[in-house]
Amino acid sequence: MIKVLVVHGPNLNLLGQRQPEIYGTTTLAEIDRQLHALARAEGAAVETFQTNHEGAIIDRLHGAQGRYGAIVLNAGALTHYSYAIRDAIASISVPVVEVHLSNIHAREPFRISVIAPVARGQIAGFGAHSYLLGLRAALAIAADGARRARRKP
Amino acid sequence: MIKVLVVHGPNLNLLGQRQPEIYGTTTLAEIDRQLHALARAEGAAVETFQTNHEGAIIDRLHGAQGRYGAIVLNAGALTHYSYAIRDAIASISVPVVEVHLSNIHAREPFRISVIAPVARGQIAGFGAHSYLLGLRAALAIAADGARRARRKP
Amino acid sequence: MIKVLVVHGPNLNLLGQRQPEIYGTTTLAEIDRQLHALARAEGAAVETFQTNHEGAIIDRLHGAQGRYGAIVLNAGALTHYSYAIRDAIASISVPVVEVHLSNIHAREPFRISVIAPVARGQIAGFGAHSYLLGLRAALAIAADGARRARRKP
Amino acid sequence: MIKVLVVHGPNLNLLGQRQPEIYGTTTLAEIDRQLHALARAEGAAVETFQTNHEGAIIDRLHGAQGRYGAIVLNAGALTHYSYAIRDAIASISVPVVEVHLSNIHAREPFRISVIAPVARGQIAGFGAHSYLLGLRAALAIAADGARRARRKP
Amino acid sequence: MIKVLVVHGPNLNLLGQRQPEIYGTTTLAEIDRQLHALARAEGAAVETFQTNHEGAIIDRLHGAQGRYGAIVLNAGALTHYSYAIRDAIASISVPVVEVHLSNIHAREPFRISVIAPVARGQIAGFGAHSYLLGLRAALAIAADGARRARRKP
Amino acid sequence: MIKVLVVHGPNLNLLGQRQPEIYGTTTLAEIDRQLHALARAEGAAVETFQTNHEGAIIDRLHGAQGRYGAIVLNAGALTHYSYAIRDAIASISVPVVEVHLSNIHAREPFRISVIAPVARGQIAGFGAHSYLLGLRAALAIAADGARRARRKP
Amino acid sequence: MIKVLVVHGPNLNLLGQRQPEIYGTTTLAEIDRQLHALARAEGAAVETFQTNHEGAIIDRLHGAQGRYGAIVLNAGALTHYSYAIRDAIASISVPVVEVHLSNIHAREPFRISVIAPVARGQIAGFGAHSYLLGLRAALAIAADGARRARRKP
Amino acid sequence: MIKVLVVHGPNLNLLGQRQPEIYGTTTLAEIDRQLHALARAEGAAVETFQTNHEGAIIDRLHGAQGRYGAIVLNAGALTHYSYAIRDAIASISVPVVEVHLSNIHAREPFRISVIAPVARGQIAGFGAHSYLLGLRAALAIAADGARRARRKP
Amino acid sequence: MIKVLVVHGPNLNLLGQRQPEIYGTTTLAEIDRQLHALARAEGAAVETFQTNHEGAIIDRLHGAQGRYGAIVLNAGALTHYSYAIRDAIASISVPVVEVHLSNIHAREPFRISVIAPVARGQIAGFGAHSYLLGLRAALAIAADGARRARRKP
Amino acid sequence: MIKVLVVHGPNLNLLGQRQPEIYGTTTLAEIDRQLHALARAEGAAVETFQTNHEGAIIDRLHGAQGRYGAIVLNAGALTHYSYAIRDAIASISVPVVEVHLSNIHAREPFRISVIAPVARGQIAGFGAHSYLLGLRAALAIAADGARRARRKP
Amino acid sequence: MIKVLVVHGPNLNLLGQRQPEIYGTTTLAEIDRQLHALARAEGAAVETFQTNHEGAIIDRLHGAQGRYGAIVLNAGALTHYSYAIRDAIASISVPVVEVHLSNIHAREPFRISVIAPVARGQIAGFGAHSYLLGLRAALAIAADGARRARRKP
Amino acid sequence: MIKVLVVHGPNLNLLGQRQPEIYGTTTLAEIDRQLHALARAEGAAVETFQTNHEGAIIDRLHGAQGRYGAIVLNAGALTHYSYAIRDAIASISVPVVEVHLSNIHAREPFRISVIAPVARGQIAGFGAHSYLLGLRAALAIAADGARRARRKP
Repeated sequence: MIKVLVVHGPNLNLLGQRQPEIYGTTTLAEIDRQLHALARAEGAAVETFQTNHEGAIIDRLHGAQGRYGAIVLNAGALTHYSYAIRDAIASISVPVVEVHLSNIHAREPFRISVIAPVARGQIAGFGAHSYLLGLRAALAIAADGARRARRKP
Repeated sequence: MIKVLVVHGPNLNLLGQRQPEIYGTTTLAEIDRQLHALARAEGAAVETFQTNHEGAIIDRLHGAQGRYGAIVLNAGALTHYSYAIRDAIASISVPVVEVHLSNIHAREPFRISVIAPVARGQIAGFGAHSYLLGLRAALAIAADGARRARRKP
Repeated sequence: MIKVLVVHGPNLNLLGQRQPEIYGTTTLAEIDRQLHALARAEGAAVETFQTNHEGAIIDRLHGAQGRYGAIVLNAGALTHYSYAIRDAIASISVPVVEVHLSNIHAREPFRISVIAPVARGQIAGFGAHSYLLGLRAALAIAADGARRARRKP
Repeated sequence: MIKVLVVHGPNLNLLGQRQPEIYGTTTLAEIDRQLHALARAEGAAVETFQTNHEGAIIDRLHGAQGRYGAIVLNAGALTHYSYAIRDAIASISVPVVEVHLSNIHAREPFRISVIAPVARGQIAGFGAHSYLLGLRAALAIAADGARRARRKP
Repeated sequence: MIKVLVVHGPNLNLLGQRQPEIYGTTTLAEIDRQLHALARAEGAAVETFQTNHEGAIIDRLHGAQGRYGAIVLNAGALTHYSYAIRDAIASISVPVVEVHLSNIHAREPFRISVIAPVARGQIAGFGAHSYLLGLRAALAIAADGARRARRKP
Repeated sequence: MIKVLVVHGPNLNLLGQRQPEIYGTTTLAEIDRQLHALARAEGAAVETFQTNHEGAIIDRLHGAQGRYGAIVLNAGALTHYSYAIRDAIASISVPVVEVHLSNIHAREPFRISVIAPVARGQIAGFGAHSYLLGLRAALAIAADGARRARRKP
Repeated sequence: MIKVLVVHGPNLNLLGQRQPEIYGTTTLAEIDRQLHALARAEGAAVETFQTNHEGAIIDRLHGAQGRYGAIVLNAGALTHYSYAIRDAIASISVPVVEVHLSNIHAREPFRISVIAPVARGQIAGFGAHSYLLGLRAALAIAADGARRARRKP
Repeated sequence: MIKVLVVHGPNLNLLGQRQPEIYGTTTLAEIDRQLHALARAEGAAVETFQTNHEGAIIDRLHGAQGRYGAIVLNAGALTHYSYAIRDAIASISVPVVEVHLSNIHAREPFRISVIAPVARGQIAGFGAHSYLLGLRAALAIAADGARRARRKP
Repeated sequence: MIKVLVVHGPNLNLLGQRQPEIYGTTTLAEIDRQLHALARAEGAAVETFQTNHEGAIIDRLHGAQGRYGAIVLNAGALTHYSYAIRDAIASISVPVVEVHLSNIHAREPFRISVIAPVARGQIAGFGAHSYLLGLRAALAIAADGARRARRKP
Repeated sequence: MIKVLVVHGPNLNLLGQRQPEIYGTTTLAEIDRQLHALARAEGAAVETFQTNHEGAIIDRLHGAQGRYGAIVLNAGALTHYSYAIRDAIASISVPVVEVHLSNIHAREPFRISVIAPVARGQIAGFGAHSYLLGLRAALAIAADGARRARRKP
Repeated sequence: MIKVLVVHGPNLNLLGQRQPEIYGTTTLAEIDRQLHALARAEGAAVETFQTNHEGAIIDRLHGAQGRYGAIVLNAGALTHYSYAIRDAIASISVPVVEVHLSNIHAREPFRISVIAPVARGQIAGFGAHSYLLGLRAALAIAADGARRARRKP
Repeated sequence: MIKVLVVHGPNLNLLGQRQPEIYGTTTLAEIDRQLHALARAEGAAVETFQTNHEGAIIDRLHGAQGRYGAIVLNAGALTHYSYAIRDAIASISVPVVEVHLSNIHAREPFRISVIAPVARGQIAGFGAHSYLLGLRAALAIAADGARRARRKP
């Protein structure tokens, strides 16, 4: 069974509790529930993790090697400057799908992503739905990877 | 029934025929078939259109008003400089989901999107799958819009 | 009798129909009517043309040579990147007055005009009135040109 | 009766006396005469003022509040760096029409206007005629303002 | 009684022990003592916290919601790149006063503050006194907030 | 007795009379009263001065030498480009505390301060309260200067 | 027999009719005649095409696949911003020789070529002669390509 | 007899009184004395003027027309942003020699001169001696101008 | 006996396990062994430490004061943005030798080092050998420091 | 008989001996032979010169005045920074044709040519063939120059 | 007797022979004669040297140590990029006066001087007269240096 | 026996004779002696060469092919702009180790190295010791190269 790791970066623990006018009233727990439901429906499993510490995200990415078929990552504001997370993604072979709640391309100019060049792809701007689309993309990539692995006997 | 317009910009007609090592062997016709299948499965309809002319894309966006619930747009290289398409998107109320086959954030620096700030969201880097994720996002947005419209009697 | 060509670029066909809170409720047809009225009052004639195609604007500018005393041009978003229109203006001898409905200098930094350096002058920020001021400027320039032409026997 | 203030900034006192090959032979006095004539013809009044001192322009803008329906301002080279004049325009409610004799967009890159973002609109490149077009724009804006004021009883 | 949280970022634990020729001989403990004294004198309370970990600052900012009337923050060098702290400040409603011992505007160009746009205000350049001025500002803002809260019954 | 000079730059005379939604309803006269009250309470004296002329600010800074223990300066928009005021501050030995009503770091990018590098420190974003904090900082610096002067017999 | 396609972009139809002081009096028809003559002399054939429409150039480049041994392209001002033409060149296997009448490197800074990185080479600054040198380069490249194709049985 | 005007801009009145470690102990009065002495020795006359007001420098430059053979100008910090002084120099025909006490090219990057492009030449870095070299340059230019004027009968 | 601390930053724990085609098959443990061997051979001692947490590096640098003669630091990707580590290095007196496995100057433009200005020197591009050269440099610097300390009785 | 000087700059002596995978196996001697052959076929003469010294290129350009009808110059890497060669080209009247083996516009951003603005034209990207096209261009220009010279008796 | 070395960089040997409309008809030999005459008149000696080789200028600057009281240097276009000459000037103690025939500040943006920060001062824009003013400055500096040297017994 | 070439660029001949406060009192001859000693101790040989001429460095790099196992290069200020030396390094197969006495990363922003991207690695900031570390790195690289060469029979 395909397993996907979902990593939520800094400040995402506050989701749904603060600034509802911007980010809506959906909490992170609610998003995690939706992710588990979609995974089950697709015959897969999902594991989720939130932290405000850059180093903890890197530790977790390292530990993903060989345990997950793909990773869905919302690195929060670390997206914009953490070359250490970028290097962590580049140094593991598990594919990473980058997701964002808001359309980061419609915001301030510094809101570029320094991790995008090493991610497989990026989904941004669809609110909580970005995670579900990200999980679908991750599942397709992981299934593709598994297929390819089976072929090489 | 929700209807979604899918617009393919310049050079996408060559998909699957040229540079298969980069873009794969899936043709545009094949992608369109997959989009129609997914739409049917979701009880919706899709219409597709390809052109190499910026003006023709703008004409088509104008004509979408009141006829589609959402638009999926891959503007090709026009993504990077067509402020006219950007203004067309801004001047209609049909929501636009921007999709790209490749991860444009991992390519040359000029590969930024000038239309992203007025699109609802962006999906990039998942090959032909980007279109299917884009259609899912479009359907969700259109359904949401329809719900809201029904509420205002 | 002095004849002036008025060219409306991409998205201006939607004027008065979309985003009335920004651009007001005056339609392009109404603006054209006001231009014809002012021209008549000044003993001149005006011809108007709208297109969403860059190439069509260039074709029309080329055709203006020898037929009009001046051109009033609102190139829409093409203003900001069409060096081809810029070259077309530079390669004809009919003077061009650049007009904009909104104050483009108060908007995003990319809203500079690449055609301004080859236009005679620019009028921006007065809504539909920008066109009327533009026509007045065009008539004065054309009259001036006609006077000078008569003097060289 | 609508009253419009016309402010001429640094070096404009030399108009018509120096560099006639660039700025023509029309003096500032002659321009002021034309402005008075146009104002009279339109049933309005105009007051003109020239200074080479930034502080004096600011003092005059402050004093305009409640005394004029609109202001026509050619801030000369202060246009390009006086954020103090910009703030003065932003802090009064009298609308300001920015005018320039030459087409500043066709000159050196530093010739941008820092006051444009807070002006109503800009007219540039028509020589002395820029002032007359500016006065027409100012009269229309002032008339509009007066109409709106009468409506609120 | 108004309570204010004071957060000291990376390297501030070394204050007064290293580079006394630049930062003086006042230790962080001494600054904390002065802050407590001033708070007492003003009938308020202060809590202080130092860490070299970005994630720990974010955790602490999240925990401040509902417990403090205002926060005084010296984020040390994180000031210059931590968009994660910036987002943490933006996502809580407790107002933050940014303080710096040295005049960061007189130092290297990279010494801009990325958190300043979401802070209430900034005080920089007065050595240990910056903290006391920051506490005074925080108390005034908190008192103001408390007054406003009482008014809405 | 310590004497402090407070200098208000261009447009600050309009404080409390225009744009109350942004700058509040406190007038400059009211701020001056508060400054005098605080000075008296601290056993010091304050003198205030407002002008819209850059040259007048420079003249006044020159005249401050030997007459005041410190200066509180809000240079208004001149803050952003007056290298002449910067040089004036650098060429006198009276310490200058720079204050701003609004948080200039949260505004447009051109709102940097060119005088900050030669000021002692900067206080910004606390409305009228910025002046009072600035006066406190100035008094502390002046007292410190006086103490040091007495020690050198 | 080797066949070469020559594509002339926007405004080149005016060649020799306007601005003779800059571009000389040679018309596009005359250049085409010279190209046909040189092709005949070298035992090859040439086909020429002019348009002011970006989309039409892209359509033509797509259609060139398998029909021409090489393309000579003067994209006019589209050279400076048409990433869509760049992508069209990159997506066909027919080699493209970029030519310019004037020395674009000696003109305004925006006169860089965005298509140069995907063209085989560039010839600029020799007036109408640039086309003849371009045709020679195209013939050599095409002959080389034909030779290589014959070798792979 | 050739007459030269010497204009000293903001803060130069403090010369020799403040920061002697940087600018030396020579006062402005002393420099003026040396300039008068050199002028007399060369059979010419010199007039000197100091102000901290930009507008006053512009007024004085305007008044120089027809009264002086050349001007020596040290615009102080206004050198770095006063496009109004630049335009004043450009609009008079009296040649201007720009002088600076310090080597402005060895200082901060913002220390470029915006007036240099319209000055005849620039002398910087020789302390008070810069003025004497500037006066020599001015006398040579003025003598040259006088010679040329005499030749055109 | 001289003691040197070696600090390995984020992602260096994966050395030799991932991307062997880029970084070789030498593990961090193997590098540490070589460092210990070289230290012993030179009559010195070495201590090594790896972490993915920025804050932990800062804590360790603070703790080095008085315990080590020099530090060898490979901060990994934190090299490129951690001004907090830069400040930590600047605030301790133990000299720091910066090392990198790859030639960071041959990689992407963002791969500059923000800590280099406060390090003693930098060694980059020699793979695992960079560490050994770094240790040699550190030993020389530490020996030099010890000599100097002995001289000041 | 027309004579053309061909100048090869630094590192071109290694052509065909090093990096054959990039630059092919054609040596500089072979290119020179082809140039002589083409010149003979066209009834002209060619002289060739290689050096790794910037000064030697300048000396040779100076010496070309009056001796050659045109110059073909491949300045190698000096192309990208030698303003001294640029000035040398600008100060002689012999026209210079700039050639490059590779398409410099397709390489790193620093690979712009600082000499292009003063060259007649540029040919880049056709390998050794660039030289032959360059010689043809040079011969045409020289013939044109000779014709014009004969006409002025 | 004070001795001054005058160094003329690349292309200056062509002075007066080429482009007389820009640089006048004065040759380098004539300038050298004027320099010798002025030196004699002032009781000093001058030595002059021209080369097109950067290395030769550096060799000559090194050799100047202890033999000349000052150097007058016109480095020609090397002024704009030769950091090697800059370092040579910085590493000798003979003061260098930088001179330019034309006003380099009125030319293209790349015409900044990289050697100015280490030169004593700069004189630009006075044609051949720049050298004479430069020699006067050099003599004054050298005399000053000699005076200071005599004082230290 | 492995042979290493050491190349010293412009101004390094002055080492130890000028600016001892910055560069110490070690002369280049002394450094060369230390290099020879270290080479002998390691059973290798070293050859050293100094020049102020860019072309001479290039000539020497070309000549190194096949004669040395590695090169240690301190290109002095040419490091910062000599793309010709960069190309020379890229066109030979002898590996180059770049060394600098000072920490160039701690100096002015223009002190980047344009040759670093083609060098094997860089050692900077350890004074004369940089050369010894560079020689050690070069010996290791050369030994490695020799080993690999022996393996390919």
